[in-house]
Amino acid sequence: MIVVMNGRATQADIDRVVVTVEDAGGECFISPGKNRTIIGLLGDTDRFMSLPLGGLPGVDEVIRVGKPYKLVAAEARSTPSVVSVGNIDIGRDAFTIIAGPCAIETEDQAMSAARAAKAAGAQILRGDAYKHRSSPYAFQGLAKTGLEILKQMRIETGMPVVTEVLQTSDVELVASYVDILRVGARNMQNFQLLREIGKIHKPVMLKRGLSSTIEEWLMAAEYIAQQGNQDIVLCERGIRTFEPMTRNTLDLSAVPIVHKLSHLPIIVDPSHASGKRELVAPLSAAAVAVGADGIMVDVHPHPEAALCDGPQALTNDEVPPLVKELAAVAKAIGKPLSRPRHALTAVGE
Amino acid sequence: MIVVMNGRATQADIDRVVVTVEDAGGECFISPGKNRTIIGLLGDTDRFMSLPLGGLPGVDEVIRVGKPYKLVAAEARSTPSVVSVGNIDIGRDAFTIIAGPCAIETEDQAMSAARAAKAAGAQILRGDAYKHRSSPYAFQGLAKTGLEILKQMRIETGMPVVTEVLQTSDVELVASYVDILRVGARNMQNFQLLREIGKIHKPVMLKRGLSSTIEEWLMAAEYIAQQGNQDIVLCERGIRTFEPMTRNTLDLSAVPIVHKLSHLPIIVDPSHASGKRELVAPLSAAAVAVGADGIMVDVHPHPEAALCDGPQALTNDEVPPLVKELAAVAKAIGKPLSRPRHALTAVGE
Amino acid sequence: MIVVMNGRATQADIDRVVVTVEDAGGECFISPGKNRTIIGLLGDTDRFMSLPLGGLPGVDEVIRVGKPYKLVAAEARSTPSVVSVGNIDIGRDAFTIIAGPCAIETEDQAMSAARAAKAAGAQILRGDAYKHRSSPYAFQGLAKTGLEILKQMRIETGMPVVTEVLQTSDVELVASYVDILRVGARNMQNFQLLREIGKIHKPVMLKRGLSSTIEEWLMAAEYIAQQGNQDIVLCERGIRTFEPMTRNTLDLSAVPIVHKLSHLPIIVDPSHASGKRELVAPLSAAAVAVGADGIMVDVHPHPEAALCDGPQALTNDEVPPLVKELAAVAKAIGKPLSRPRHALTAVGE
Amino acid sequence: MIVVMNGRATQADIDRVVVTVEDAGGECFISPGKNRTIIGLLGDTDRFMSLPLGGLPGVDEVIRVGKPYKLVAAEARSTPSVVSVGNIDIGRDAFTIIAGPCAIETEDQAMSAARAAKAAGAQILRGDAYKHRSSPYAFQGLAKTGLEILKQMRIETGMPVVTEVLQTSDVELVASYVDILRVGARNMQNFQLLREIGKIHKPVMLKRGLSSTIEEWLMAAEYIAQQGNQDIVLCERGIRTFEPMTRNTLDLSAVPIVHKLSHLPIIVDPSHASGKRELVAPLSAAAVAVGADGIMVDVHPHPEAALCDGPQALTNDEVPPLVKELAAVAKAIGKPLSRPRHALTAVGE
Repeated sequence: MIVVMNGRATQADIDRVVVTVEDAGGECFISPGKNRTIIGLLGDTDRFMSLPLGGLPGVDEVIRVGKPYKLVAAEARSTPSVVSVGNIDIGRDAFTIIAGPCAIETEDQAMSAARAAKAAGAQILRGDAYKHRSSPYAFQGLAKTGLEILKQMRIETGMPVVTEVLQTSDVELVASYVDILRVGARNMQNFQLLREIGKIHKPVMLKRGLSSTIEEWLMAAEYIAQQGNQDIVLCERGIRTFEPMTRNTLDLSAVPIVHKLSHLPIIVDPSHASGKRELVAPLSAAAVAVGADGIMVDVHPHPEAALCDGPQALTNDEVPPLVKELAAVAKAIGKPLSRPRHALTAVGE
Repeated sequence: MIVVMNGRATQADIDRVVVTVEDAGGECFISPGKNRTIIGLLGDTDRFMSLPLGGLPGVDEVIRVGKPYKLVAAEARSTPSVVSVGNIDIGRDAFTIIAGPCAIETEDQAMSAARAAKAAGAQILRGDAYKHRSSPYAFQGLAKTGLEILKQMRIETGMPVVTEVLQTSDVELVASYVDILRVGARNMQNFQLLREIGKIHKPVMLKRGLSSTIEEWLMAAEYIAQQGNQDIVLCERGIRTFEPMTRNTLDLSAVPIVHKLSHLPIIVDPSHASGKRELVAPLSAAAVAVGADGIMVDVHPHPEAALCDGPQALTNDEVPPLVKELAAVAKAIGKPLSRPRHALTAVGE
Repeated sequence: MIVVMNGRATQADIDRVVVTVEDAGGECFISPGKNRTIIGLLGDTDRFMSLPLGGLPGVDEVIRVGKPYKLVAAEARSTPSVVSVGNIDIGRDAFTIIAGPCAIETEDQAMSAARAAKAAGAQILRGDAYKHRSSPYAFQGLAKTGLEILKQMRIETGMPVVTEVLQTSDVELVASYVDILRVGARNMQNFQLLREIGKIHKPVMLKRGLSSTIEEWLMAAEYIAQQGNQDIVLCERGIRTFEPMTRNTLDLSAVPIVHKLSHLPIIVDPSHASGKRELVAPLSAAAVAVGADGIMVDVHPHPEAALCDGPQALTNDEVPPLVKELAAVAKAIGKPLSRPRHALTAVGE
Repeated sequence: MIVVMNGRATQADIDRVVVTVEDAGGECFISPGKNRTIIGLLGDTDRFMSLPLGGLPGVDEVIRVGKPYKLVAAEARSTPSVVSVGNIDIGRDAFTIIAGPCAIETEDQAMSAARAAKAAGAQILRGDAYKHRSSPYAFQGLAKTGLEILKQMRIETGMPVVTEVLQTSDVELVASYVDILRVGARNMQNFQLLREIGKIHKPVMLKRGLSSTIEEWLMAAEYIAQQGNQDIVLCERGIRTFEPMTRNTLDLSAVPIVHKLSHLPIIVDPSHASGKRELVAPLSAAAVAVGADGIMVDVHPHPEAALCDGPQALTNDEVPPLVKELAAVAKAIGKPLSRPRHALTAVGE
């Protein structure tokens, strides 16, 4: 950490900073300058952050340097991570397509979308049994019945599945049905949930919060990693801005930035980011080109009858041309589509 | 809900919208215009929102009208709500000052801040036993030990207390110690927690999420109210913007807006909004003047030794002049400070 | 400026930074740390900012310290500035109320609003002859005819006047009619206009840009000051955020921050910030309480017939109770309303 | 426009709205509903927007429908526009690469970057003689000397050139040197400048403002088009958000949205959006994949010696592999790179 003293700071002002830091177990290095003096702090940065240094006389600025996350930082591993989800590897060497219904509404709807996803060439299925809705009056998901349908989708297609888990008490149950759990944007800083998921042996997809900086997102991943689970896939899904034409503003710059700062893989969800079906294909192609490790898209056989997020779902027929285009762009940048390593085994095997 | 058809929409396009709405159990009113046709939808708006109307041919815009919340809306009551917190009423007729340590760190620190708050004329004490920290490496609170200290603060001062509850499994325990529970900004859309709190008989303070619109905030309050608990106090604490000089941007406009849209009381937290001690007094005065029903401020006997948020805490000595100034501003706008209705009884009595 | 080297940076990496800085005429101070090395840069910071230091091997972060503005900084003067506008002083010792029509539409409308403002106790009149509109199809102002009406308002009421100037070619003309020129939010970084205004001897009110940080705003003021004109009044008018209920989010924290960073006075425009008449009174009271040096509000005798911004204008009848309330709040915080120093003389005398 | 009346609105309230609208020359269509009544307004929407309808009794919401721009709307033309810039066509059938120095600093620097851009296969050169800097103390450009160097770059390479024009008084001079003028982000709502450029016969590139919505951007283009000049190329360059890791957040969703709403071509500037060299290549590839009609990137032979924006400039050596990758992605989505239609003639011929 760095403390910048202004030009009128006295020696007593500087000493006061030094004493405060030393009382907190730290050490100070002082670089006197013409217009200001810079004090470098060595020690426990988290501890320093709680000190009221900014309010001491003569202090102009207090600046945190260095990264507050450790286990998920790029420096923590010699090579980027690969997260095995059922028989599919999510990582930087291939591009993974996750597709399926936003919410599981009926067996027919879910199976139809799953078959379309498989036929088109997707590698992982999505489908939610529990829904996180801003309104308490909106459809909240089929719960356990939905998980059973998800199991059936998994068995029939032979594809791994991902679903959202909303609360700690569901973690174990949900984990027994799926290949990778998902933590939604609104739960990105539900640290109780993150810790609980960190304790189990199951990959997890962590969506970026609506107003989360990239650093806060990596800190949330650190909460999971710290409990022992480092099989984490990050998912960029748009941030909140002033632009009203899209539900959120997809921040594709996050992809190369995360690749530089962390060893974790990162995918993109253009469906929830934009909220508009016609934007899903162009944003998916952009996600491939920017170097993302995969995408996740909503598919619904009859979007006009959807109970949730119909406006953003691709129809079954729109998936094959999308996968074809993504394969072409992926090839152009030298990254193939993912392929199953072997036949899918039962969850947990 | 309103669907706006563009000028090139055909009769078939209009019919398709009508059929889709009717299939979802709704009814349509059509107003043909020169440049566009407007279709008014009657029925279940939440259901309509999930329809992919925006993607149908000829559709220009789909606009939600009306308020998605019901129980917390101004229309639901003939007069604004008053929430009784121990022996203090929080409502529009008086201004309530909540003060105390951000985190309870030691008995000495907490008791010292509590005594300062009481001596200065505050009406309710704050003090957290569980802390929600972006970093897993930061101080996370004293847990049950902290609650015991809080109990002691309550007994010695005779003032009601508020503390944050972070997870569902703690709700019952925490509620047995305090007069009002608090839901933090990062948990504003932790709907599991909201529902759990909605089931108990204990006032709750609901902080606005960092990137939450006022409407989403009222929807979160609706989640609590829907379970039977309508003793809700809203707390504005700043929203995330591009301005780096304050931790968040305090949105004081939210106060008169909430007063217009809802019957619930609303207070302001200038400490967490700004993150800077020197801004607490001016923003508190502004909160009184804008019509807020109270404020909540951090106090610490030795901010330079604080384990959490030291930079924003007032020292014990700064509280009396603040309370004095707030009383003067409150008087100027014709709103007195709150006063206890009677001596404080045990929690739950 | 500070360059932070990561833990894997070699001596060669550090040397490369030093050479780059020295080639640009700077000097380096190196503080080696356990996890990272910090290099302090002495010299021309603006020059350093253009160097690609962030891209050099081993560099983690490049951090600017210190303030990029000089003439408008608090350090530049021993006491806060007072800007004389006609016979009124705008500064920290008194609170100034500026009121009048947003746009001058007709002589009747403008004179009626001016008389109401005077009767209520405002000290300065506003009224625009040139309007900056997002749509080329909206009312653009009466131009010279409007200035003539403004002159008449000034003569009849004996109050100083402020009006917006949109383009360099109008500066001289507009300045010959008014006591203080205004630069609108959309022109805050129209540096050509700022420089032109900096060359004349006439106070200027500089509104904050919609997405401008406080630092950028002070830099814009520096553009004016650098040309010789330091009679600058800053005006906070809301920043753009995701919240749709107000046109912009009024950032009242900017008031105490500007008072700390700069010697310039700062006022608040609650009318344009909120866009809603019912928010003008509470936000004005909050502006007084937070320590602002004044407010500027829109008044219209018949808002329902306004050609511009009718929804935010107070009616003539709403001004007297507002001024009364503001005087009460101002008194409570120990700041009186401004008073004319003498009778108003002709512009330029 | 639509006015939504709440459930408690009386017939008198509804009548008041109708009379207000009719007095402003409009017509009303009333759709009575169970919970609220919807009033559709026919007539001059810009006029209606200035009415204080939102403040009338019983009114819940006032909603603008339809697009406020006309000439640049997709509906205004049967096919998308193609803008001819020298011997290059910018439009939806091919992808155009614009490259060159951010600022022209010296003849050597500019010519070196220009040669590198040409050798790599770019189609248009960039290079600024006038710089728009937040700080008055930063390098402001070579002015006329810079234009002369630009002329030389154009002659030697046979490539069309683009440069920024900052103020109305320079429009004619700058236009005599270049094939396409550029209006910068900070000038997007400098309507005086837009009108002046609208009057000449020269293509113009209009950058999106930092906090501009897509609709406001199209309105700014309308200001130019309304004066007679419809040869407009839009340029997305990032919007201001809370994320500090990039200078701005590149909003690639704007590309398909603009293609739907307008007939104008749209390109992307990844250099100024990100402010970081290492993000330029991935964001450029994403721009191709999302369907943009081109990109504009900064190139500098020695970024470490740049006077402006060195951190984001590609080196000469980085341009050829970038162009090669973009060609591959463009081919994958079925869009070739632009090619000159003929040899370049003198400006204005």
